[in-house]
Amino acid sequence: MLAVRFDGAVSVASVDVPVPEVGETRVLVRMAGICSTDLEITRGYAAFRGTLGHEFVGEVAPDADPAWAGRRVVAEINAACGACDRCAAGLGRHCAARRVIGIRDHDGCFAEAVCVPTANLHAVPEHVPDELAVFTEPLAAALEILAQVPIPPGDPVVVLGDGKLGLLVAMVLRRHGCDVSLVGRHPRKRAIAAGFGARTPEIAALRRGDARWVVEATGSSAGLACALELVAPRGTVVLKSTVHGASTLAISGVVVDEVTLVGSRCGDFAPALAALAEGSIDPRVLIDHVRRLHEAREALVLAATPGTLKVLLDARR
Amino acid sequence: MLAVRFDGAVSVASVDVPVPEVGETRVLVRMAGICSTDLEITRGYAAFRGTLGHEFVGEVAPDADPAWAGRRVVAEINAACGACDRCAAGLGRHCAARRVIGIRDHDGCFAEAVCVPTANLHAVPEHVPDELAVFTEPLAAALEILAQVPIPPGDPVVVLGDGKLGLLVAMVLRRHGCDVSLVGRHPRKRAIAAGFGARTPEIAALRRGDARWVVEATGSSAGLACALELVAPRGTVVLKSTVHGASTLAISGVVVDEVTLVGSRCGDFAPALAALAEGSIDPRVLIDHVRRLHEAREALVLAATPGTLKVLLDARR
Repeated sequence: MLAVRFDGAVSVASVDVPVPEVGETRVLVRMAGICSTDLEITRGYAAFRGTLGHEFVGEVAPDADPAWAGRRVVAEINAACGACDRCAAGLGRHCAARRVIGIRDHDGCFAEAVCVPTANLHAVPEHVPDELAVFTEPLAAALEILAQVPIPPGDPVVVLGDGKLGLLVAMVLRRHGCDVSLVGRHPRKRAIAAGFGARTPEIAALRRGDARWVVEATGSSAGLACALELVAPRGTVVLKSTVHGASTLAISGVVVDEVTLVGSRCGDFAPALAALAEGSIDPRVLIDHVRRLHEAREALVLAATPGTLKVLLDARR
Repeated sequence: MLAVRFDGAVSVASVDVPVPEVGETRVLVRMAGICSTDLEITRGYAAFRGTLGHEFVGEVAPDADPAWAGRRVVAEINAACGACDRCAAGLGRHCAARRVIGIRDHDGCFAEAVCVPTANLHAVPEHVPDELAVFTEPLAAALEILAQVPIPPGDPVVVLGDGKLGLLVAMVLRRHGCDVSLVGRHPRKRAIAAGFGARTPEIAALRRGDARWVVEATGSSAGLACALELVAPRGTVVLKSTVHGASTLAISGVVVDEVTLVGSRCGDFAPALAALAEGSIDPRVLIDHVRRLHEAREALVLAATPGTLKVLLDARR
C-alpha cells in the first residue's frame, strides 16, 4: 500500500499493509487532514520516524471484528497502556507510556490503511460526509478548551492566531455563545471569521490588561507575551500552541495580576462528532486544497505555505 | 517621627507625622515585618520611593474616628480607587489605579505612624499578641492559594522553597490537611517544617511528573522550571514568587501535559486573622530577629542574609 513516510525526509513509499496488534483494528483510510503538528514533525519535532498523520476518517477493514467491519469511523489518537495510574484515573491521553498515532511510536494515517486501538474507534453518522468527519480530531482539540475552563456563554474572548486552530477555536467559542475577537493578519481568514460572527479587530485596538479570557493559538513563541499583555488581572490564558523551544515569561506579572495559564491539547471525540453531526459547526470553509495520497509531498508543501488553511489527503479508491 | 525611607538608598530619617487623606486613618505602628518584597524594593523593584514596609500591627491614633480610636489593628495593603469596574467587581486588589502601602505611591509602615484607608482596617482580637498579628498580611497571601485553587484536604502538595513564604504556605497546607513535601536546602528550616508535620525530601527523591499540586515559592527565576519538572500532567503549579525579569518557559510541555499555572499574590485578611486567633497557625517559629525602628538598616541587612527567616521591627514606645 502507499504510505507517507518520514525518516528525516518525507517520501511516498510502497509499504506492507499494517497488521493490527492485539486490541487494534485496521482502518482503510478515506480522507486525512494535514495538521501543523505534522509539519512540525517534518522539522524534527518529537523525533518521530514512520508514517505521518493523525487526523482521518476511514472504513474498518472487512476482515475486522464483525461489530466494526465496514463501518465508517474516526479514531482517537492516543494509544494508552491501560494499566497505569493515569489510565486508571481516566487520563489515558496523559499515559506516560502512550503511543500516539503518527506522532509517537505508532504509524499514522497518511496511508491507505492505519491500525488503531479498537477502543479508540467512533462510528461516523451516515449523513456526515468525509470532508466533515475528517475534522473530528482538531475540533475535539478546540472543544477541549471548554472542557477545561468554565468560560460562561456570552463572555468576551480574545483568540490570538487566525490559522486552522485559531479559526476552529473561534468557531467553537461562537457556538458556545461567546463574543469572540479573533486577532490575525490575513484578510481572507478574517473574512472567514466574520462569516461565523467573530469580530476581527486590529490587535492595537484591544485594550491592554482587559481580556478576561485569551486563547493563544498563534503557533509562535511570541504569542504568550502578547496574550499576557491583553489578559486582565485574574484572567485566564489558554495555551493551544505546541511551540518548540522556550518562550520567555515575566513571572512577576503573572503573580501580581494573579493570571491563570492553562495548557490545552487533545479532547474527547464524542462531543466533536456530535457537533459535526448536528451541523452546529461546519469547518469545511477551512479546506483550501485536496490532494490524492500520491501527491502528499506537494500537499505538505502547500500546507506549509503561509496563509494556507486546511489541506486534505484523499485516499478513497 | 522616625521613618525608614528609600530614595535609592535606605535611611532612618525624622519626618513629619503623616496626615490622613479623606477616607484614611492614622495608625501608630507597634510592630512591622520585613518581607522579601521590601528587600526587592531596595534593589529597585517597582521603582518605589518613600517609607518602606507593608506588614504591620498598630494602634489607631487617639484623634481618629471614635469607632476606631485606640483599637489595635492590622490593615490590608491595597488602596483601591473604589470607582472602577474592577473595584465594582470586588477586585480592588487588582484596581489599576490602586496605591499599595509601602510598595506603590503610598508611604509604608516602617515608621512610628502610617495612614491607611479606613476600609482596610481589621481589629485584632485582644488575645492575639503583636508578634502573631504582624503575620496577618503574609499569612493572608499564603491562604490566598486555597481561595484560588481547590486543593482537596489530604492531597499531596510539593512546596518549593523553604523561605518565609514557603514555610507559611506549608503551614497553611498542613492545616488544610494536605500531605506537604517542602523542598529546601537549609537544615534549620527543614527542622521547622518537620516540626509542623511537613515532609522535607531531597528534590532528587521526588518523582518527575508526579505532583498533582506544586507551589513555587523559591523567590528564584529557576523555580518555575523545577516546578514544571515535578508537576504531573493535568497538574497545577501555583506561582507565589514575584521574581524580577523573565524566566524561560517551555510552552510545549505545558500544552502537551495540559498543566495549569496560577499566579497568586495577596489574600483576604479575615481568614488569616481568624486562623491566628484560633491558634491553628503559629508563625512565631519563623521570627529570627527583632530590632527597634532606629536599627532598621541593620534589620534589613539581617533580613537579606541568606538563611534568615523573619525579621521584625519593634516600634512600640
